[in-house]
Amino acid sequence: MARRYFPDRVHFRWDKRLEPVLTIDPGDVVVYDLRDVTDGQIGPDSTAEVLGRLDWDRVYALAGPLAVRGAEPGDTLEIEVLDLHTRGWAWTGTIPGFGLLAEDFQEAHLYIWDTSNGRSARFLDVAEIPLRPFCGTMGVSPDTAEPLPIMPPGHFGGNLDIRDLTVGSRLYLPVQVPGALFSVGDPHNAQGDGEVCVSAMEGPLVGAFRFRLHKGRRIPGPQFEVSAPLRAPDERYFVTTGVGPDLMEAAKEAVRAMVDHVAREYRIEPVDAYVLASVTVDLKISEVVDQPNWVVSAYLPLSIFGRR
Amino acid sequence: MARRYFPDRVHFRWDKRLEPVLTIDPGDVVVYDLRDVTDGQIGPDSTAEVLGRLDWDRVYALAGPLAVRGAEPGDTLEIEVLDLHTRGWAWTGTIPGFGLLAEDFQEAHLYIWDTSNGRSARFLDVAEIPLRPFCGTMGVSPDTAEPLPIMPPGHFGGNLDIRDLTVGSRLYLPVQVPGALFSVGDPHNAQGDGEVCVSAMEGPLVGAFRFRLHKGRRIPGPQFEVSAPLRAPDERYFVTTGVGPDLMEAAKEAVRAMVDHVAREYRIEPVDAYVLASVTVDLKISEVVDQPNWVVSAYLPLSIFGRR
Repeated sequence: MARRYFPDRVHFRWDKRLEPVLTIDPGDVVVYDLRDVTDGQIGPDSTAEVLGRLDWDRVYALAGPLAVRGAEPGDTLEIEVLDLHTRGWAWTGTIPGFGLLAEDFQEAHLYIWDTSNGRSARFLDVAEIPLRPFCGTMGVSPDTAEPLPIMPPGHFGGNLDIRDLTVGSRLYLPVQVPGALFSVGDPHNAQGDGEVCVSAMEGPLVGAFRFRLHKGRRIPGPQFEVSAPLRAPDERYFVTTGVGPDLMEAAKEAVRAMVDHVAREYRIEPVDAYVLASVTVDLKISEVVDQPNWVVSAYLPLSIFGRR
Repeated sequence: MARRYFPDRVHFRWDKRLEPVLTIDPGDVVVYDLRDVTDGQIGPDSTAEVLGRLDWDRVYALAGPLAVRGAEPGDTLEIEVLDLHTRGWAWTGTIPGFGLLAEDFQEAHLYIWDTSNGRSARFLDVAEIPLRPFCGTMGVSPDTAEPLPIMPPGHFGGNLDIRDLTVGSRLYLPVQVPGALFSVGDPHNAQGDGEVCVSAMEGPLVGAFRFRLHKGRRIPGPQFEVSAPLRAPDERYFVTTGVGPDLMEAAKEAVRAMVDHVAREYRIEPVDAYVLASVTVDLKISEVVDQPNWVVSAYLPLSIFGRR
């Protein structure tokens, strides 16, 4: 019988001293009501000005921590994603000072998605984005004397923002402290690899996870398995590239070229193209060995535009 | 009627002063016999010692240059990949001083593939790798006073090593000099994103390409379209990650974790796992915005191991 997680138990820092709000046995399933990353500060009726007055102490509302009986450092915690379902709406925004192209897009911008059909969400009048929900943040508690902010991910997992951790996937995390102290949040309805504008299709999700413990299995950091196809099986892509001696600059160059392409080709504002890239465009490292120049490619799936 | 490219016309530097060996009109198709990247210095009977005495002046044997009538700087050259077919064998090697994990793998190592069935190639007794041929190097001549080495790619294209430039794809390159002066080589029978050990499944290919010219279309660097699925539609993956403030270090960390995993799980030597990663594992940038830590993921397709 699945355990139900109390939706009002959230925390905003990684802190091994937090009391577990639930203790489970390996093999148990837990069902969560997951708040959006801002803990409800943004809602379906919000406008961009909300982004300027966010209370950052309430950003990254994580459900947890959950204690797993018998978990010790040196073990691996497995999280199987059994189910994730949208609660009907989501937001994507650019936030001044954040994002891969922070210097290009300096103003707050907000787009509200209608995800109520549970399958896809419309973007302006140009694209239909399939929902592919996952949790941006899943982690075990790091073993640090002082609490840590949630935003940077680490070898304990946390804010990994890996788009493929969707239903059917299994995430493996190296346990750092007794009981593992697992927390989850930052629900995303869809995202591209990179999450380039700093937000995905952010919105509350209902989620169910099964937890297993691998005693004595040591891993150096997060690992996972994906069973679902990463995109539609017959997907077509338009791809831009960045070429140069620094992967970060190459990533920026590839995304800039994509923003230019999408804005021109689909006649939308550059900031809208940037938002669209954040929820659909995948960044790949095409080569990292032809010294001194590397290639990062940005893949835009064309099926979102329908028949053209 | 397709033009046939003379197989003995190769060059080893990007040099805008080279005489074109063929001049075509936009819309023409050219069929090439493409030599392996070493210009035949490695053959199906070679052993690892050949890697220590390579004549580097003959590495990156490119077919070309091809002049396209009417092409000028400010135009875009489109290369449609119509056909690519293996010539029956290929090699993958580690070369001292090269590769993403050059510090971990310091000795020359060579694996010879039998690609004669045209569909897949066996790796030791552990995996069957589907062939997915493409050309690692396709470029227009850069507009530089001095010749350039082929290894580093650039905004003119060149040694991009983009695994998805396979049959059905269209590559767009910004023309830099009159006539475009297009060259192609570095044929790969298969590769993962990243080409981590510095070589792919390297071997001669027969290739056919259609060239189109987009007058006045300016692009900042290589762009492309892919029609084929990137992997098998029902692919499953095992994925390792690297997490930290530097994308290059994160890429190394992800590949090290993958090498460890594959060597242990499939009971092969680490260097074999590294070679396998170079031809099958895809590097993705999962997130590049959760400052100050980024996530690079290494995706291993599990279908290559058959039913398990």
